[in-house]
Amino acid sequence: MKGYQLTLYTQQNRRHEGKMLADWIVGLAMDMGLRGATLVSGIEGFGHTRQFHSHHFFEMADQPMLILMALSEEECDALLQRLDEEGVPLFYVRVPAEFGMLGTPVDA
Amino acid sequence: MKGYQLTLYTQQNRRHEGKMLADWIVGLAMDMGLRGATLVSGIEGFGHTRQFHSHHFFEMADQPMLILMALSEEECDALLQRLDEEGVPLFYVRVPAEFGMLGTPVDA
Amino acid sequence: MKGYQLTLYTQQNRRHEGKMLADWIVGLAMDMGLRGATLVSGIEGFGHTRQFHSHHFFEMADQPMLILMALSEEECDALLQRLDEEGVPLFYVRVPAEFGMLGTPVDA
Repeated sequence: MKGYQLTLYTQQNRRHEGKMLADWIVGLAMDMGLRGATLVSGIEGFGHTRQFHSHHFFEMADQPMLILMALSEEECDALLQRLDEEGVPLFYVRVPAEFGMLGTPVDA
Repeated sequence: MKGYQLTLYTQQNRRHEGKMLADWIVGLAMDMGLRGATLVSGIEGFGHTRQFHSHHFFEMADQPMLILMALSEEECDALLQRLDEEGVPLFYVRVPAEFGMLGTPVDA
Repeated sequence: MKGYQLTLYTQQNRRHEGKMLADWIVGLAMDMGLRGATLVSGIEGFGHTRQFHSHHFFEMADQPMLILMALSEEECDALLQRLDEEGVPLFYVRVPAEFGMLGTPVDA
């Protein structure tokens, strides 16, 4: 299937509707019926504001978080629009991708 | 060099031929003479089946695992075909990429 | 904005100018005024030399490190040229990408 690999960047101390923002996004992806989302934590980094977010130099709360998703073009547009309307601060990167399942899903 | 950035998604409790599936794939990549593979663990996520795989909410065994590789088109096709024949359940994402070495390899 | 998603691969025990190479690169990215960089650690992997770099099988120092950046074409070319001139051993993967901010930056 053709579409996009979307990466959303946030950090551990961002919250939205009483949840960690990254968890809220994974939940939203489930609610929207998207095919998957994987949350990966970074060690350190800096974002769009020159501020250094680090795991071992500063507190844990600054830890960068990445959410990876494989989406059709329609799904990607709908998700980005929804997130933008929600007003949550996120940096996104999307790249054209081909994706699918190999082998036999064991928990299908 | 032109080719693909391939990401394979599995989870920590999947096993194949007596090994953790992710480790088995890294070993296969070495056996096939591919130029590299890097295993990254996710914190949580869900896959193609609405089931929530989490590091901190459920047991460690559900932890998502990503394998990243840079491959020529021929290598990528051969690997995906081999994995599909092996019957191991995997989600793959591939994106067109350019890759190579910078500087002087220290352990060449 | 259009540009590249750049991934640089190194490992924890590589040092440059008295720093961990990965940290030195994040610092360079800040000095160059780039918009962000995120450092992610891998569990294990092998690089361009058949050597197996592992977190749980060998010592921590061998742990793979990935640096992710979203860059314009000019920024990407300038960074790769600078890193190549610096002579630091790195594997790079770049993929055409579209990126930007969603919502309202909270710490702008």
